[in-house]
Amino acid sequence: MDRRRTAKIQPQYARSHCPVSCTLDIVGDKWTLLVVRDLFLGKKRYGEFAESPESIPTNILADRLKRLSEHGLVSRRAYQRHPRRYEYQLTKKGNDFGPVEVGLLRWGKKHVAGTRAAKQLKR
Amino acid sequence: MDRRRTAKIQPQYARSHCPVSCTLDIVGDKWTLLVVRDLFLGKKRYGEFAESPESIPTNILADRLKRLSEHGLVSRRAYQRHPRRYEYQLTKKGNDFGPVEVGLLRWGKKHVAGTRAAKQLKR
Repeated sequence: MDRRRTAKIQPQYARSHCPVSCTLDIVGDKWTLLVVRDLFLGKKRYGEFAESPESIPTNILADRLKRLSEHGLVSRRAYQRHPRRYEYQLTKKGNDFGPVEVGLLRWGKKHVAGTRAAKQLKR
Repeated sequence: MDRRRTAKIQPQYARSHCPVSCTLDIVGDKWTLLVVRDLFLGKKRYGEFAESPESIPTNILADRLKRLSEHGLVSRRAYQRHPRRYEYQLTKKGNDFGPVEVGLLRWGKKHVAGTRAAKQLKR
């Protein structure tokens, strides 16, 4: 109860101090979790993410990579100058997200018929 | 590549056979993951979910509990007849989702400043 009152008085705070909720404020949507999956699969470049079977729209891809960079889960480096192109990879902080992706993978393999993992997630 | 072609020919299929993606088709949004968190915290009744600090809108709560029931992660039993009221709890299939919630919790505790877990997730 005390927590809710604080949240109302100080709206700059996240709505909750729960670590699950705070984590979800950063990565709690399907596309973000799929981009992070792709990073664990070793994908680095825009085109590699874009060709995943879920066909992420490019504006969403750009937004999610930007957000993951801002929150320190992903770093980027230019691999081409004209035009400038970037490669993305997980930071230590992003890499710590591995258990969540592995949990999603295992649950799906066990409970959703017809799934198959393309290859091992890199951790 | 073969996978993408199949998805186009048979649009009734999920877009991807990836177990991560298929799992996210069921639980890949913030509210669902928060309701599942609450179930792991031992919450059972509508009012208990509704008073969580994230203030889930009641129509979204009803939708997510329905969806979790349809997918077999949650079962319900009436605890009152007039008017009929239900209690919800995780099934074995829902309980198998524990590692994902624990992963979200641990990542938040480690990487988001100012978080604190209300109490232990029940597994």
